[in-house]
Amino acid sequence: MTDTISIKLSLRSRLHHQINPALWHGSGLSPLNKVIVLCIFLAVIMAIAETEPAVRTLPWFSTLTTITDRIFSFVFTAELMLRFWVIGEAAKFRGMTGRVKYLFTPATLIDIAALIPFYITVGADGSFMLRLFRFLRILTLAKLGRYSKAFRLLINALNHRRHELFISVGFAGVVLLFSATCLFVLEGPQQPEAFGSIPRALWWSVATLTTVGYGDVYPVTVLGRLFGGITAFTGIAIIAMPTGIIAAALSDAFQERQK
Amino acid sequence: MTDTISIKLSLRSRLHHQINPALWHGSGLSPLNKVIVLCIFLAVIMAIAETEPAVRTLPWFSTLTTITDRIFSFVFTAELMLRFWVIGEAAKFRGMTGRVKYLFTPATLIDIAALIPFYITVGADGSFMLRLFRFLRILTLAKLGRYSKAFRLLINALNHRRHELFISVGFAGVVLLFSATCLFVLEGPQQPEAFGSIPRALWWSVATLTTVGYGDVYPVTVLGRLFGGITAFTGIAIIAMPTGIIAAALSDAFQERQK
Amino acid sequence: MTDTISIKLSLRSRLHHQINPALWHGSGLSPLNKVIVLCIFLAVIMAIAETEPAVRTLPWFSTLTTITDRIFSFVFTAELMLRFWVIGEAAKFRGMTGRVKYLFTPATLIDIAALIPFYITVGADGSFMLRLFRFLRILTLAKLGRYSKAFRLLINALNHRRHELFISVGFAGVVLLFSATCLFVLEGPQQPEAFGSIPRALWWSVATLTTVGYGDVYPVTVLGRLFGGITAFTGIAIIAMPTGIIAAALSDAFQERQK
Amino acid sequence: MTDTISIKLSLRSRLHHQINPALWHGSGLSPLNKVIVLCIFLAVIMAIAETEPAVRTLPWFSTLTTITDRIFSFVFTAELMLRFWVIGEAAKFRGMTGRVKYLFTPATLIDIAALIPFYITVGADGSFMLRLFRFLRILTLAKLGRYSKAFRLLINALNHRRHELFISVGFAGVVLLFSATCLFVLEGPQQPEAFGSIPRALWWSVATLTTVGYGDVYPVTVLGRLFGGITAFTGIAIIAMPTGIIAAALSDAFQERQK
Repeated sequence: MTDTISIKLSLRSRLHHQINPALWHGSGLSPLNKVIVLCIFLAVIMAIAETEPAVRTLPWFSTLTTITDRIFSFVFTAELMLRFWVIGEAAKFRGMTGRVKYLFTPATLIDIAALIPFYITVGADGSFMLRLFRFLRILTLAKLGRYSKAFRLLINALNHRRHELFISVGFAGVVLLFSATCLFVLEGPQQPEAFGSIPRALWWSVATLTTVGYGDVYPVTVLGRLFGGITAFTGIAIIAMPTGIIAAALSDAFQERQK
Repeated sequence: MTDTISIKLSLRSRLHHQINPALWHGSGLSPLNKVIVLCIFLAVIMAIAETEPAVRTLPWFSTLTTITDRIFSFVFTAELMLRFWVIGEAAKFRGMTGRVKYLFTPATLIDIAALIPFYITVGADGSFMLRLFRFLRILTLAKLGRYSKAFRLLINALNHRRHELFISVGFAGVVLLFSATCLFVLEGPQQPEAFGSIPRALWWSVATLTTVGYGDVYPVTVLGRLFGGITAFTGIAIIAMPTGIIAAALSDAFQERQK
Repeated sequence: MTDTISIKLSLRSRLHHQINPALWHGSGLSPLNKVIVLCIFLAVIMAIAETEPAVRTLPWFSTLTTITDRIFSFVFTAELMLRFWVIGEAAKFRGMTGRVKYLFTPATLIDIAALIPFYITVGADGSFMLRLFRFLRILTLAKLGRYSKAFRLLINALNHRRHELFISVGFAGVVLLFSATCLFVLEGPQQPEAFGSIPRALWWSVATLTTVGYGDVYPVTVLGRLFGGITAFTGIAIIAMPTGIIAAALSDAFQERQK
Repeated sequence: MTDTISIKLSLRSRLHHQINPALWHGSGLSPLNKVIVLCIFLAVIMAIAETEPAVRTLPWFSTLTTITDRIFSFVFTAELMLRFWVIGEAAKFRGMTGRVKYLFTPATLIDIAALIPFYITVGADGSFMLRLFRFLRILTLAKLGRYSKAFRLLINALNHRRHELFISVGFAGVVLLFSATCLFVLEGPQQPEAFGSIPRALWWSVATLTTVGYGDVYPVTVLGRLFGGITAFTGIAIIAMPTGIIAAALSDAFQERQK
């Protein structure tokens, strides 16, 4: 009897080390996590492919989705149940209260949300609800958050300069609004559809300041083009400031790590 | 009598500390300034929304603007009067001459300019004067200048490199003019509307050098495309130079602050 | 008899030093390599020109290609045979087994692949096979890889930061997918052709996040434009992160070299 | 007699210090150079305005150009003659041989070239020769080269990294050619006008890699869009590399200057 418990416990402990990336003794991911990450990527690719009518209407595709959906729902449900079982190894989440506490951690909530579209099917083809559910399927990608240690390191480096980055965003906002207002005043009478109000002119401002420049709207009057040109050059400053801040932050972070 | 004065003085002193961000002992903004900043943001959002015909013609919108305009005009007028009263606390602006001197500080002039559109209404719907007044309403945002301590720190860091930034602007100007002249010579005969003069070709040059690329005008001849391509690549240098200067300036500023 | 061998050996040794850029005692390239590099450039230019119908149909062009093709096929074949002969100088590739080993080095495989289009002609004008063969001709450029010592130094510097660069690519991928899904949900019903599925919306996402902005597709609804604008601004971060990483990596590499 | 010579010499010496920016004892430009720089800017603005038919056909404009042309031709001719006289102060350019040597310095040649369009008028309205002459007028701007000491400092800083910049240009060239060849193979059959040959596809490649994205040509097939998207993302690396190199070079230059 004691033996069975000890074996069961050691199995739980071993699985805990397998499923928790931080506890894995080897380099890279454990075999179990490799399977889960592969399933996440495949599920996302299937969710993307499913939205394309040219793919959806293929005769063999519905058969494929039926099969993969069953596999993914099984894997992700099993993963979630396993996590709830093995988390008892962690002192923090032991017992019934611990499990409830674990239920409300962000990572667990994401895991549960990612399971919803596998169990509930809603909406007719083309409806808004269906579109939203397809969006949920893409959110499966958020499950990768558990493995993004390196990503968080980069975020931390940028977090040190969040104040400066925030200012450059504020600067961008002021320039955005200012240029939209200028073009609204100057180009509004000529092109009421594109510049007839500040919210409308903002669409042009965003496209110009980010140097995207779709070309669906652009100034045509001399004054409008003059201010448009100034806006385009200011866009360079708006790109240069965060780039400079990020470059400086990363350069410092690299030098610190070397010491 | 002396008591009333002392109370009045202490009230003035307390309000002075409340309204002047630099004197506030706590972190962040004082409660009074929080209200003012909130009103500034709301007033700007209302001014933006008002320009959009689809919003302006909503039945409840004119009622809303009447109410919000009264609130904002009251808050900003009260703020201005309060500032004139409490500024007596500062030795520099004491007495009648001090108040006149205070009237001509940039921040006060902005406060007064921002009040104009709340008291004067001009122009019929769609007229240029009305557009200009709507522009003044957006200028309310300039009132935020009082709170932009962090923004000024960034500007100071860039100010150290203003010489280099100025040169890169000059370099951009020369390249701009040179590429416009080239395209005017090469593409002018084919596309007189877009490249028939240097000022016209400048519009294409700005869109290309800033990598915005609206696509309303572009070269079509072989030579025009060759020079156009060279211009597009030079645009990268024009983005890279200020970005490099800003990155270097910020990196130095960060390292200095760490010491 | 011994003399002839010694002369032959010394000729082989001298040619080995001529043809191997790493062994050349002078600065720059050896005279032999200068000829080869020139031929590579000319062959690529001819291959490019050949694809243009306006050039291909010129009466003198087919005569020119016949001549140049013979010259280039002779030079590159002679170069390959020479390399196989002189490589015996290197201990590693001596003898028959050494030659076979040398055959399977990437540089030799590229040299052989680049020779194919000079000896085999396939496909009628306009066929896919012909297009593919023209692509092979451009691959002649890959022969330059032997001379790209400086290029490899830069690659090495970036290799140190490959982890960070990989993360920023991953970040770009997530943002790409997320923005495409948002636009698919919001703009899909209005523009089924451009945003009717996530793979279709991805084309817009790529053009916007990289700030290319062709303008063939763009959001037209209010919500679509709001999310489109956010995507365009996120595009700045996607440009800023690799730029910052590369700038920091190069700055460190330069400082290290100075010490 | 000796007195007159001494006065004349001292006048020449004083003018030499006035006209040579490097010898001016005060800060900024000497009064004489200020006049010359102002004339350069005004002459360029007139040359730009002249190309615009809407301005050229104004009744008062031809009168204005007649006057300004006389003023500028007088100022620039006087400047050139003055320079030839005072250069005798410099040991290097003394005597007849010195003057001939001075004639062939780049700055003097630019000065002479900039004078040509003021003395020779060619071509009917709209002819190519006239366009070319207008281009020469813009070259007046090159006269500013004498005053660009600060610009040359920046160029020197970049000159240290010319090797790395050259490599990144080479890298851009290879990517450009490779992406153009890919699109030629994949999109050529669908869009022969835009992608029917590598030189044609290069126009799309340039617009995409520099993230300009005019939108006059873009891939429409699935494979074409896939490779187009990869090209657009590679464009970020092509922007990031020179930006990083320039940022690192400037950062080092700034730090050196501080020591």
